[in-house]
Amino acid sequence: MDAVVYKGPHEVAVEEVDEPEIEHPNDVIIDITTSCICGSDLHMYEGRTAAEPGIVFGHENMGIVTEVGDAVSDLEEGDRVVAPFNVACGFCENCEDGYTGFCTNVNPGFAGGAYGYVAMGPYTGGQAEQLRIPYADFNALKLPEGDEHEDAFALLADIFPTGWHGTELANLEAGDSVAIYGAGPVGLMAAYSAKIKGAAEIYSIDRVPSRLDLAEQHCDATPINFEEADPVEQIKDEHGGGVDKGVDAVGYQAIDPEKEADEAYDPARENPAVVLNNLIRTVKPTGELGIPGLYVPEDPGAPDEIAAQGRLGIDFGLLFEKGQKLGTGQCNVKSYNRELRDLIIEGRADPSWVVSHRVSLEEAPEMYQKFDNREEGVTKVLLEP
Amino acid sequence: MDAVVYKGPHEVAVEEVDEPEIEHPNDVIIDITTSCICGSDLHMYEGRTAAEPGIVFGHENMGIVTEVGDAVSDLEEGDRVVAPFNVACGFCENCEDGYTGFCTNVNPGFAGGAYGYVAMGPYTGGQAEQLRIPYADFNALKLPEGDEHEDAFALLADIFPTGWHGTELANLEAGDSVAIYGAGPVGLMAAYSAKIKGAAEIYSIDRVPSRLDLAEQHCDATPINFEEADPVEQIKDEHGGGVDKGVDAVGYQAIDPEKEADEAYDPARENPAVVLNNLIRTVKPTGELGIPGLYVPEDPGAPDEIAAQGRLGIDFGLLFEKGQKLGTGQCNVKSYNRELRDLIIEGRADPSWVVSHRVSLEEAPEMYQKFDNREEGVTKVLLEP
Amino acid sequence: MDAVVYKGPHEVAVEEVDEPEIEHPNDVIIDITTSCICGSDLHMYEGRTAAEPGIVFGHENMGIVTEVGDAVSDLEEGDRVVAPFNVACGFCENCEDGYTGFCTNVNPGFAGGAYGYVAMGPYTGGQAEQLRIPYADFNALKLPEGDEHEDAFALLADIFPTGWHGTELANLEAGDSVAIYGAGPVGLMAAYSAKIKGAAEIYSIDRVPSRLDLAEQHCDATPINFEEADPVEQIKDEHGGGVDKGVDAVGYQAIDPEKEADEAYDPARENPAVVLNNLIRTVKPTGELGIPGLYVPEDPGAPDEIAAQGRLGIDFGLLFEKGQKLGTGQCNVKSYNRELRDLIIEGRADPSWVVSHRVSLEEAPEMYQKFDNREEGVTKVLLEP
Amino acid sequence: MDAVVYKGPHEVAVEEVDEPEIEHPNDVIIDITTSCICGSDLHMYEGRTAAEPGIVFGHENMGIVTEVGDAVSDLEEGDRVVAPFNVACGFCENCEDGYTGFCTNVNPGFAGGAYGYVAMGPYTGGQAEQLRIPYADFNALKLPEGDEHEDAFALLADIFPTGWHGTELANLEAGDSVAIYGAGPVGLMAAYSAKIKGAAEIYSIDRVPSRLDLAEQHCDATPINFEEADPVEQIKDEHGGGVDKGVDAVGYQAIDPEKEADEAYDPARENPAVVLNNLIRTVKPTGELGIPGLYVPEDPGAPDEIAAQGRLGIDFGLLFEKGQKLGTGQCNVKSYNRELRDLIIEGRADPSWVVSHRVSLEEAPEMYQKFDNREEGVTKVLLEP
Repeated sequence: MDAVVYKGPHEVAVEEVDEPEIEHPNDVIIDITTSCICGSDLHMYEGRTAAEPGIVFGHENMGIVTEVGDAVSDLEEGDRVVAPFNVACGFCENCEDGYTGFCTNVNPGFAGGAYGYVAMGPYTGGQAEQLRIPYADFNALKLPEGDEHEDAFALLADIFPTGWHGTELANLEAGDSVAIYGAGPVGLMAAYSAKIKGAAEIYSIDRVPSRLDLAEQHCDATPINFEEADPVEQIKDEHGGGVDKGVDAVGYQAIDPEKEADEAYDPARENPAVVLNNLIRTVKPTGELGIPGLYVPEDPGAPDEIAAQGRLGIDFGLLFEKGQKLGTGQCNVKSYNRELRDLIIEGRADPSWVVSHRVSLEEAPEMYQKFDNREEGVTKVLLEP
Repeated sequence: MDAVVYKGPHEVAVEEVDEPEIEHPNDVIIDITTSCICGSDLHMYEGRTAAEPGIVFGHENMGIVTEVGDAVSDLEEGDRVVAPFNVACGFCENCEDGYTGFCTNVNPGFAGGAYGYVAMGPYTGGQAEQLRIPYADFNALKLPEGDEHEDAFALLADIFPTGWHGTELANLEAGDSVAIYGAGPVGLMAAYSAKIKGAAEIYSIDRVPSRLDLAEQHCDATPINFEEADPVEQIKDEHGGGVDKGVDAVGYQAIDPEKEADEAYDPARENPAVVLNNLIRTVKPTGELGIPGLYVPEDPGAPDEIAAQGRLGIDFGLLFEKGQKLGTGQCNVKSYNRELRDLIIEGRADPSWVVSHRVSLEEAPEMYQKFDNREEGVTKVLLEP
Repeated sequence: MDAVVYKGPHEVAVEEVDEPEIEHPNDVIIDITTSCICGSDLHMYEGRTAAEPGIVFGHENMGIVTEVGDAVSDLEEGDRVVAPFNVACGFCENCEDGYTGFCTNVNPGFAGGAYGYVAMGPYTGGQAEQLRIPYADFNALKLPEGDEHEDAFALLADIFPTGWHGTELANLEAGDSVAIYGAGPVGLMAAYSAKIKGAAEIYSIDRVPSRLDLAEQHCDATPINFEEADPVEQIKDEHGGGVDKGVDAVGYQAIDPEKEADEAYDPARENPAVVLNNLIRTVKPTGELGIPGLYVPEDPGAPDEIAAQGRLGIDFGLLFEKGQKLGTGQCNVKSYNRELRDLIIEGRADPSWVVSHRVSLEEAPEMYQKFDNREEGVTKVLLEP
Repeated sequence: MDAVVYKGPHEVAVEEVDEPEIEHPNDVIIDITTSCICGSDLHMYEGRTAAEPGIVFGHENMGIVTEVGDAVSDLEEGDRVVAPFNVACGFCENCEDGYTGFCTNVNPGFAGGAYGYVAMGPYTGGQAEQLRIPYADFNALKLPEGDEHEDAFALLADIFPTGWHGTELANLEAGDSVAIYGAGPVGLMAAYSAKIKGAAEIYSIDRVPSRLDLAEQHCDATPINFEEADPVEQIKDEHGGGVDKGVDAVGYQAIDPEKEADEAYDPARENPAVVLNNLIRTVKPTGELGIPGLYVPEDPGAPDEIAAQGRLGIDFGLLFEKGQKLGTGQCNVKSYNRELRDLIIEGRADPSWVVSHRVSLEEAPEMYQKFDNREEGVTKVLLEP
């Protein structure tokens, strides 16, 4: 079958690879109907990870069940399902506690597994024609038959729950004011989640006008362009003080507005702690910070040697003085995907406005390049094998 | 009246000062029966803050009501009370939400007030014969008449709740394993709190054998001496992996076991992020960190310039990879002091074992010096005017 | 000054009464700008309580501060405020824990006080020209100057928070399905709260078409008319099983659809347990029930002697088998009124659609009569002295 | 193999039955080392349920794995395990949410399954030589090798977690006062749980002196004998008012102290709502009630026809006036069994003091008779095949 294969920094290709097979009685095989390109795929694509060539990418997958292992109880051929990007067993202590992003059984020596991702276990990605889903009763969420809401449901694999997770980590409650750094797909989904949950005020911080427009239009967010002035001061001026909650939907590849650069996107402008420190300043004393944006213990492309080891200069004295709390980590998709699915089915949520492109698998290499260049208008790309 | 007055770095004196008066109808005046010396008093004592000479120290105060303002409803002369170290109004948004350590009314321009502490508002300390308690209905906790449990009740002003707060910030639950860095008064109280709450395993980390003995004897803790070997490895060996929860009861004046020094206590061995980073390593993925230990946004005595601004090098990549959460900030004493008082009254808790000295006010200067030298056996000093 | 005075069953009159005065240094006096008639006023009006003639009604009050007690810190003349219907001290254990509806200081021998209500303490009601607010720093919520949002803000005294409370007692979360019994003012506010919080499906159950229309129009609720068929079956048919959460916004004066009656509203059709038992059937196993609807320990007008003592026949076996939880009790308004105020200010919520009439104080007797007759179109009446 | 078989009201026999076999790839078979007799077995034994003769009893089971299905990942022959009494799939919505006592997959048409219990699905009981455990990775908790703590671990199948559950349903926190109705095995375990969690005061209410002695001796509880005087008044006298939390560990077969009887145990003295109503009176306003004691929607032996349908006369008006919350339902054992196991392993908990008898399978009929007669000293019986 065809699949998107990593060839090396800044290069992927559509190549023929082996079809997946049932390897364990709890597996199912699905025909992929949609698989999305994720911002975190770019970390591998850019050579900022230890990923070796040959990996099939794709951890945001949905499709139709075509083969069912002997021990699977609740799925049958023809079922339409979406799979959380996390692979999880369902019975380790972390899974039991709802931390399916930190399963201790699926990726020996590590807490957490995923499809098509470096160091996340032996699970081939779904930017391909077919996919094997392990522990399928646990890992496949059933969807209504047909093809309605295909785009919106595809976002249940990762970015809609991950944006939601940001607001959960911040304990966002109806009536709160919240600042969300980053208006990429996850940041937009966080802002959309905040709107659904009844936030009183939403500030969306980015530097790409088209993204800020989406935040304003679909999430009723106040756009804050950090290239124009210190975003913290802008928010305080608008809000009249610190906001209740904050979300970091940017992560370690954050752009420092204080740094100059020649091009629109320039790694030399990165400062991996700039969003964290701005968030600490933006949020009021006793406020809470949700950090779904990715931080890594090893970054070969970091701006300095200490950051390369994942050690960041954080204004911890100020954080402490303010008595803030923070929560981090990749999303435990299963904690939210049922409820979000139901909101979509009932017409209360439709996150598909974040999708900018739906293309064939063959167009993947071109779209990776455009997405990596942060081309205006390329927000979220869905592949349709 | 007599009071303990700050004269300058490493110097306090017992001097005569003005007696407090009712300044507002919600005030009461108490005769101090016990006022404790706190580890955080040493930050001022050592000149590590902006404290100016003339401050009367003392934020851990209890005594007998002698005068009652016209608007006070629930207190009368002769009532025995203990006051949280936080001064709080009771009706601002933070107080309403239980964050009485971050009251926005009692200390203009800042969230939080306290007695006898630099930058914490105009409230004279209680290491004196008398004390004014503002918003007294809200800030004075009534105690049973008499003098029973005097030592234990005095600890309700700060360190028993603050230790408890550490375990709350870490969301410690019965059956959890927990590592508590620091076996000073707050760390010992955190370990004792963990025992009361039914922790399955408690690790107490320090380098002073007599403190580790107290942790073992009174809290059933496993002592870990960080001068002997990497405390993280010691705990992992003993426990068989990362523990569920962690508490930092040390703060920014942490000693780095990797650094050499001539004397037992040497500021040159400080490394303000060492406990935080050890905690991140010690706690398992999905675990939670409670940080009651003090971190400050400005530290004139910091080992380097960046740390002087409260910016610390934290292993945030690892924290994120583990999906840990953390909570910080000074204790909101009123959240816990009633329940802890009741545990003492009912004989279920008696934290007075942490008290090493009860002396007259006149002996305060000598005890400050000994406490500051971390003399073996000087754990917690109570002053009795 | 003029005030609405209870004269006896089914009779109120506008009469001259004494103006309120500062009685305690923490009091303020306000000029009432709006005071609402509440469904619970009807319990007294109908003679279903122990209320004696002479009571000035009115516990939903807002206005402008005209006089300020000596101990008040945060209010001054001219401030526009809305007062929670609960009177609370702010410093008893229940107030500290956020249970301001169960203050143990303001109403000797009882937990909870209110304005203008039988057995709720010595606090005169606000359906009058002026009102005294005790512990005013704690009990008066400041509003923006001017007269914008007057109707919406008036609802912050009781029914908007009380409807919200229903959803909080049921632990309603975004994505949940919820059934709300009763589409009177509180039920409508509960449905509106559910919408704001991101409920996936909302069922509103009543028998008055105009009320169900409001629920559908303003809350996106599915209307269920219980006179047409068993509401539980209607909901299960529509939803495909039990819903996640349920709210009882009816209370003990519930109409039993199984009972026949001659008139539209007939006490002979009452069955005080019918809503509770329907709720147990409507909600799925593991679901949660929020019960803000009033139940009383003594009801002189109850359909039978046992119910007169507040003892109801509840399907507890079914409740247990389903493992349901339930929460009850009057709303602690202060837990929600700040956030709801902010939602109104920011334009994210505007509950004023529930208001059907704004009239002068003089029209109060007529409006009481119409409201008590459950006249179609009389949803919520605001008095403007 | 031999097993305890229900023959009809008040009769069980040890008979030969078929050995269990692997029926599904996720099954394991265990050799039973301990299976306990539970108070809820008596409901069937006494003919108070729809149980038909032929059922093999036993839902509190532990033993050694002897056979492993092809799809099982984490268990192997020789593993020592204890099985929660609930049978659960691990992937339905309720299991995902932690409500493993309300699994919707294992017992068609009902939420919840169990071993050897009427209407709880097709799962044979474990008062036998062997047992089949479905979804074994999810349902079998691994224990340390050997035979240490055999009694204590056996209690992890049901009564220790169920007692704990009572305190969780009541949201018991350290420092709370709590009243626990019933000092049978579950009530004693609830009192023991309260002690472990740091309750400030524990009241244990029963009428059997030997049980009250156990509560006093092992749980530091204050014993309250309800035959001596109104238990509510006794507790209020002792405590000085209502307690914070309450647990009903009795259920529908409650004895009414007001009713006279000839014999020690006489069903004519039953009053299925008496404990609930006492609990409402015992607990303070804003308090919370945990109700693990069994209530049933159909009771053929109920004292009256309405109670036979599970409808009870509950003082709901008082409950509401006090703003109490309550939680019900059978225990989700998996929510607690890991932590409780760890407390046992670490020596922080040892509930085996509740065990009064350990006998061979052959003695089961005799022990059922004695247990059913509530013979003094027969607290908890363990069978060893």
